[in-house]
Amino acid sequence: MTNPVLVEVTRGAVVESAHRGAVSVFDADGRPVLEIGDTDRPVFPRSAVKAIQALPLVESGAADAYGFGNRELALACASHSGEPAHVELATAMLAKAGLDRKALECGAHWPSSHDATIALARAGGVPNALHNNCSGKHSGFLCTCAHAGISHGGYVKAGHALQEMVREAMQSVTGAAHDVDHCGTDGCSIPTYAVPLKSFARGFARMATGRGFSPERAKAAKRLLSACMAEPFLVAGTGKADVALMQAAPGRIFVKTGAEGVYCAALPELGLGIALKCDDGAGRAAEGMIAAVLAKLLGSDEALAARLTGLARPAIESRVGAKVGLLRPTAALN
Amino acid sequence: MTNPVLVEVTRGAVVESAHRGAVSVFDADGRPVLEIGDTDRPVFPRSAVKAIQALPLVESGAADAYGFGNRELALACASHSGEPAHVELATAMLAKAGLDRKALECGAHWPSSHDATIALARAGGVPNALHNNCSGKHSGFLCTCAHAGISHGGYVKAGHALQEMVREAMQSVTGAAHDVDHCGTDGCSIPTYAVPLKSFARGFARMATGRGFSPERAKAAKRLLSACMAEPFLVAGTGKADVALMQAAPGRIFVKTGAEGVYCAALPELGLGIALKCDDGAGRAAEGMIAAVLAKLLGSDEALAARLTGLARPAIESRVGAKVGLLRPTAALN
Repeated sequence: MTNPVLVEVTRGAVVESAHRGAVSVFDADGRPVLEIGDTDRPVFPRSAVKAIQALPLVESGAADAYGFGNRELALACASHSGEPAHVELATAMLAKAGLDRKALECGAHWPSSHDATIALARAGGVPNALHNNCSGKHSGFLCTCAHAGISHGGYVKAGHALQEMVREAMQSVTGAAHDVDHCGTDGCSIPTYAVPLKSFARGFARMATGRGFSPERAKAAKRLLSACMAEPFLVAGTGKADVALMQAAPGRIFVKTGAEGVYCAALPELGLGIALKCDDGAGRAAEGMIAAVLAKLLGSDEALAARLTGLARPAIESRVGAKVGLLRPTAALN
Repeated sequence: MTNPVLVEVTRGAVVESAHRGAVSVFDADGRPVLEIGDTDRPVFPRSAVKAIQALPLVESGAADAYGFGNRELALACASHSGEPAHVELATAMLAKAGLDRKALECGAHWPSSHDATIALARAGGVPNALHNNCSGKHSGFLCTCAHAGISHGGYVKAGHALQEMVREAMQSVTGAAHDVDHCGTDGCSIPTYAVPLKSFARGFARMATGRGFSPERAKAAKRLLSACMAEPFLVAGTGKADVALMQAAPGRIFVKTGAEGVYCAALPELGLGIALKCDDGAGRAAEGMIAAVLAKLLGSDEALAARLTGLARPAIESRVGAKVGLLRPTAALN
């Protein structure tokens, strides 16, 4: 099936570009609440499932052993912008385990924050693995290895004991088999598995409620989502959509973006999990889609819904800052 | 109608994202040679038509009066990367007309070249309007005003004498009415008009051959396309797709990208004009589409077609440079 257009980009009175996608919302009993488009198609979740991938950090006891609070757990679930606060916290997490950035196998890139990139260049710096948007997740992986006494060399590779812990968590939470035929390599070198989009919606309904989990896993999941909602800046960075969405209703909305147009989200008060994918991989469109879906699901809170609807309709500006168009959800998301 | 998927992005053995689009190829007699998808839908050409927008610079006599050769004309048709060579040449063009960057109304942004941005920041600099990817086009506009004795203030606005010259050229070359209902504002503040995609294919077939043009316009069009093909770096910048495509067959391929997934192109030896639009506006996809279309049209030159086919299939890499997927054209472009 062809997924519907969910977001349009206008210029003047004309629709200039259009983005298709699929959306799945499930409750914690495994019942579909909203299904748009093909939600059975396998999708790589990329960074949208970092909170699930961080379960072993908590469940292994590493997070407690190293004294990690909301800030460290939020960074372990983050795609951060490489701003100084992110880099410093990742450094401190590694130090707790007696490690430093040399242990990171995620690769280096300039900060995804443009301002942080300019500041780093002005200071004569060059990026290292700590600036990688995944360095918090990788620091969490390394801390898990250190606490569990697992040799960390090659920890990014499929089959390494750490990645097996991550895969177990992913399979258990999503209920979907993570097999070699649907395994790809993520930008930060770890395995990522394509499974049906709806599996992530089901999984995040469980993450938000603990329904069907062991008491330990339920507690770990709640702790991780709560940490992200308490420290949204550390999950993303200055000006990022995830921060604005989580700050719109503190403690009530969990969202996490993933590369190639993915979002996973949870609404603990409603016991709902959400997953969506923009077919073409555009982050701008995925941001508009998740904001519109959240506005719909939280429609009974009119002020919040209005704020979320505003976030779903960002302006397109010229280089002198004039508003020349906008991004907007289509009727399919009403 | 729903346009077909023309480009896929893979990760491992899985298709992660997909891009739809439309392609139109016309000959200079106005006959369609290849039509894929809905080529009647109005599309903003954005920067893909800068060579048409530069016709008044040549036809007014300004280019000759200021001694502009291939380099200056290529920059007038450019979406450049803001590298030092681009900035210096735009500065020199303005100086010929007794102007400087204060006359530019395009707005400032950091160079689209990441390396140029880092170098500018390291040198303690900040971007100005000369770094705007459109500064060459705007310098051409200002030179046209200066030579023609037109006051240049507000030269970016619809209705200004300069923009009326540009609109006349656009309407005449494409054969499509440019009306206020389909007028938007481009990122650099000038008007851009949405007209059927196929109009641009027809127009570039004329630009490449001069068929149906006055002798003066035919000469100006040939001069502009030849300048771009002679100086591809000045039309784009280091590592850009347009440079690689034009360098693949010097003097035989003209291409120009536009924002939101547009390409216009011409093959003078075959008398063909090409226009395409990726529905979702993705530049990566538009680059793959144009390379695949060029490979198809130039298939009788096997070595060239192989090179273009390679450009249509760039690798997707992890942050440590491992090949983890690729972008590839679908069978619809075979």
